[in-house]
Amino acid sequence: MRAVDIIRKKRDGHALTVPEIGWMVAGLGNGEVADYQWSALLMAIVWRGMDAAETTALTDAMMRSGSVVDLSATPGLKVDKHSTGGVGDKTSLILAPIAAAAGVLVPMVSGRGLGHTGGTLDKLESIPGFNVHLDLQRYRQVLDECGLVLIGQTAEIAPADKHLYALRDATATVESIPLLASSIMSKKLAEGIDGLVLDVKTGNGAFLERLEDSRTLAETMCAIGRALGKRIRAVITRMDQPLGRAVGNALEVVESVACLRGEGPADVVELSVELAAEMVVLAEQAKTLDEARALCHRTIADGSALERFRKLVAVQGGDPRALDDPGRLPKARRLVEVQSASSGYVRRLAAWPIGQATMLLGAGRARVDSVVDPAVGLILDKKVGDPVEAGERLCTVHLNDESRLEQALTMIRDAFVIGDPLLERDALIVERF
Amino acid sequence: MRAVDIIRKKRDGHALTVPEIGWMVAGLGNGEVADYQWSALLMAIVWRGMDAAETTALTDAMMRSGSVVDLSATPGLKVDKHSTGGVGDKTSLILAPIAAAAGVLVPMVSGRGLGHTGGTLDKLESIPGFNVHLDLQRYRQVLDECGLVLIGQTAEIAPADKHLYALRDATATVESIPLLASSIMSKKLAEGIDGLVLDVKTGNGAFLERLEDSRTLAETMCAIGRALGKRIRAVITRMDQPLGRAVGNALEVVESVACLRGEGPADVVELSVELAAEMVVLAEQAKTLDEARALCHRTIADGSALERFRKLVAVQGGDPRALDDPGRLPKARRLVEVQSASSGYVRRLAAWPIGQATMLLGAGRARVDSVVDPAVGLILDKKVGDPVEAGERLCTVHLNDESRLEQALTMIRDAFVIGDPLLERDALIVERF
Repeated sequence: MRAVDIIRKKRDGHALTVPEIGWMVAGLGNGEVADYQWSALLMAIVWRGMDAAETTALTDAMMRSGSVVDLSATPGLKVDKHSTGGVGDKTSLILAPIAAAAGVLVPMVSGRGLGHTGGTLDKLESIPGFNVHLDLQRYRQVLDECGLVLIGQTAEIAPADKHLYALRDATATVESIPLLASSIMSKKLAEGIDGLVLDVKTGNGAFLERLEDSRTLAETMCAIGRALGKRIRAVITRMDQPLGRAVGNALEVVESVACLRGEGPADVVELSVELAAEMVVLAEQAKTLDEARALCHRTIADGSALERFRKLVAVQGGDPRALDDPGRLPKARRLVEVQSASSGYVRRLAAWPIGQATMLLGAGRARVDSVVDPAVGLILDKKVGDPVEAGERLCTVHLNDESRLEQALTMIRDAFVIGDPLLERDALIVERF
Repeated sequence: MRAVDIIRKKRDGHALTVPEIGWMVAGLGNGEVADYQWSALLMAIVWRGMDAAETTALTDAMMRSGSVVDLSATPGLKVDKHSTGGVGDKTSLILAPIAAAAGVLVPMVSGRGLGHTGGTLDKLESIPGFNVHLDLQRYRQVLDECGLVLIGQTAEIAPADKHLYALRDATATVESIPLLASSIMSKKLAEGIDGLVLDVKTGNGAFLERLEDSRTLAETMCAIGRALGKRIRAVITRMDQPLGRAVGNALEVVESVACLRGEGPADVVELSVELAAEMVVLAEQAKTLDEARALCHRTIADGSALERFRKLVAVQGGDPRALDDPGRLPKARRLVEVQSASSGYVRRLAAWPIGQATMLLGAGRARVDSVVDPAVGLILDKKVGDPVEAGERLCTVHLNDESRLEQALTMIRDAFVIGDPLLERDALIVERF
């Protein structure tokens, strides 16, 4: 085979075969295919797309480029969750202990925040001592011990995806549904899971804003996962306003613990329980979603979910006392309040500028190598639908570095639209696949 | 600037600015832009195209990536010709001495053959001793001395084009009219010329088969050249059957000399004189094309064109006696005749398979690093429109290596279609710009 012929084939709009895709991915590792050839192919894929068979073959080849974890020695069904990323989305910290307490084995490999979206690893690392860098042997041990484990991607998992992602990032070829879907699925399916619940965001704060794109991504990932023999459920959820009231790493840990105590904001609890319930059904711990939801709520009410999280924190090196005493979490030096200029109702609270503003404050990453400040972020006092008086507090900014405060405050103020009361509220869960 | 933003802009179908294009080309040389970024941009250009301003900016930036020869010390207008490549096209060897004898200064930088098409440098090198590797100082001297000079591309001319062409060749991004046009023009305009005549081929043996593509390429090159202040004429010419009777390097030198003696095949003479006449008009050595044609024919009739070629050969180190005594040119060891299986008229003699067959015999290059045999090739006895009897000779194959003879003979036989007489003959000159 020759890379130039395979690139030409895709350039001209034809489907690549499984051996062709396998050869191109292998060539990335063994040097037979140059980076400049792969990047031309990536652009041709952005242009021409890939069908289900091609996307599955690409996922499979990238997954097999590294270790595929074998968890068969641990009895029971292993189910993970993946989200396409949002603002204030701390559901992993909540649903993983809930699902584990409900009898699901949850081997979760997560990512870091980038741009306006947060990342589970950054949130976990705001807990003093918490270690997300476990090797695959320790990963198996923690899963056996706690029924869940939360780590970062290791170098052994899907190295071809890592290589291609770096190329895509430098060549404006990130925005392609088959490339997005195969990248996500190659990493997730290498974790040794039996099932996967996908939370595909749509709306202003989502990576894919338009519902039709989110739908195509959800369908594509479901098709890949099912073709590769996994149990897959996808839920499209609204990401127009931030999820919950806390945005920022330590602040979100506090809100997550509140949810596990049954005291969290309704939207975060609803989404965490919905996704956990899907995991419970995939893992055959309940027959119906209703039954699964009830089981999940019981793990909150009886404290078993929080207990599970406390145990995990301790096993992964973190200080479990930080969960009960927020004073042990990093704290910002200064609080700044943002007041409403007018009276009325919050009609809109745009997630994207809120995510950008918290990134400017240091809670997120402008670039992959940016350093995150775990203490900073926002607490939103008002959310969509809430009444507000002029001069009343809309949110509190937690900050350490004031250099970009004014810019952040402008974005926060602009994110709020105050006006007449809303007649209807959009449902959080948009569609299921 | 960031390469990723420029790639994204083109990916999304927007026009790039002159500074953006200049920065990308400069980045290729100074390492700020990686090859894998350029190849993604190249694929995006294949996809989205480039407008006239972008194509001109790309040409200008590639031209300025190396030396732009200054021939202003040599008084008089300098005019070159470029052809997009064909089978049996030896017009450069004929028209350059004709134009020079008619008072045009002809500084010609040519290429080598690749695939089914021949190259001027390979033909010249079949003359014992002929040196195409002159540096730019010697290039100027030969032009001063002979009124013409024929060399190969030097490392100083448009290095960015050389770099990008290698990337395009490996990434299936050759076939793009703005990329083709800017590549050709960046090299030609670096030669220090005032004017350029473009011979854009169309038909079976042309790089671009379809007339509309040839037309777009011709228009694009004219627009670039004129925007950069040059006098440009483009002629679209038919390349359905090989030009002349000889295909192969030394065989084509013999035919070229015959043309300069006034004894060559009508189609070769016609095209050579047409293109030379366009050069003569651009160089203001005649007011009209008719006047220029007459002047060109006189340079053949009075022997001045042949004399000019003989002088050039001597000055560039070649043996001028080889022009009068073909026995001094490389000779093939064996001749094989191809006979017609049927009687009738030649309705079609496809240039592409004839070019492929001569490449198989060793007259051309399958790859850039293939070695060419100057002695081998074909002499066509019959061309389109000629009557032929069953058993009569269609052509003679001149060969040294018999390993691929059968394959070549099959292609040659299939290239000829014998049938009823043709009612109409297509004109050689299709359009002028």
